[in-house]
Amino acid sequence: MLKVEHIGIAVKDLAKSNEVFKKLFGDEHYKVESVESEQVSTSFFKIGDTKIELLESTGPESAIGKYIDKRGEGIHHIAYEVADILSEMERLKKEGFIILNETPKKGADNKLVCFLHPKSTNGVVVELCQEITSSDD
Amino acid sequence: MLKVEHIGIAVKDLAKSNEVFKKLFGDEHYKVESVESEQVSTSFFKIGDTKIELLESTGPESAIGKYIDKRGEGIHHIAYEVADILSEMERLKKEGFIILNETPKKGADNKLVCFLHPKSTNGVVVELCQEITSSDD
Repeated sequence: MLKVEHIGIAVKDLAKSNEVFKKLFGDEHYKVESVESEQVSTSFFKIGDTKIELLESTGPESAIGKYIDKRGEGIHHIAYEVADILSEMERLKKEGFIILNETPKKGADNKLVCFLHPKSTNGVVVELCQEITSSDD
Repeated sequence: MLKVEHIGIAVKDLAKSNEVFKKLFGDEHYKVESVESEQVSTSFFKIGDTKIELLESTGPESAIGKYIDKRGEGIHHIAYEVADILSEMERLKKEGFIILNETPKKGADNKLVCFLHPKSTNGVVVELCQEITSSDD
């Protein structure tokens, strides 16, 4: 694991939350992005070497919407940047972690991503992510 | 806010969780520390430019124990490093955030810390922290 690439926070209202986090950080989000396959709208704030990603559900099947229904707004996941997502998935599977998607999928911010089930990581949803480079296409 | 200094994760059993996170990160925690005033035992893992802090409750009054009773294990707080905690507390109070301790208190890892109520930050417990230097004594 190279670094904490971002921390994902589940929010009910992205526009209102962008205002709250702008006040908190003293700086605005630098981009917004929708991920249709995950049914979420997201915004990103840069803090030092990492990012805060706010996520709003846009459909009934989104993991974010279900999370908010169950636990309310709050920190949803920690995403770690890895150099080679496939080998890291293989390593973690051997260590007994539960991989939620068997093949990496396309996430926000030009990343290949994979999630670990929180049951195997003390209640923490762990995301692995690897930047997509042109040679991955 | 200079950077994400650490992410705090509430766990029931620090020793067992240290093993889980060692497998996850492929590297061991580099220190343990007890904070009597907060009734917690902690361990720290280094990931790139930030840290993961695992926290186990050691007494009935600890915020971590109460958190686990209510929500189970999981991500408890995000700690942001600030250059001047007093001026940052003042700024955030003016912005309408709810400060949980009116004066900074001594936290783990040689830090002055202050917490914001999650009600004012979309369910996220926010910690501000500033390294204690000898001139602060």
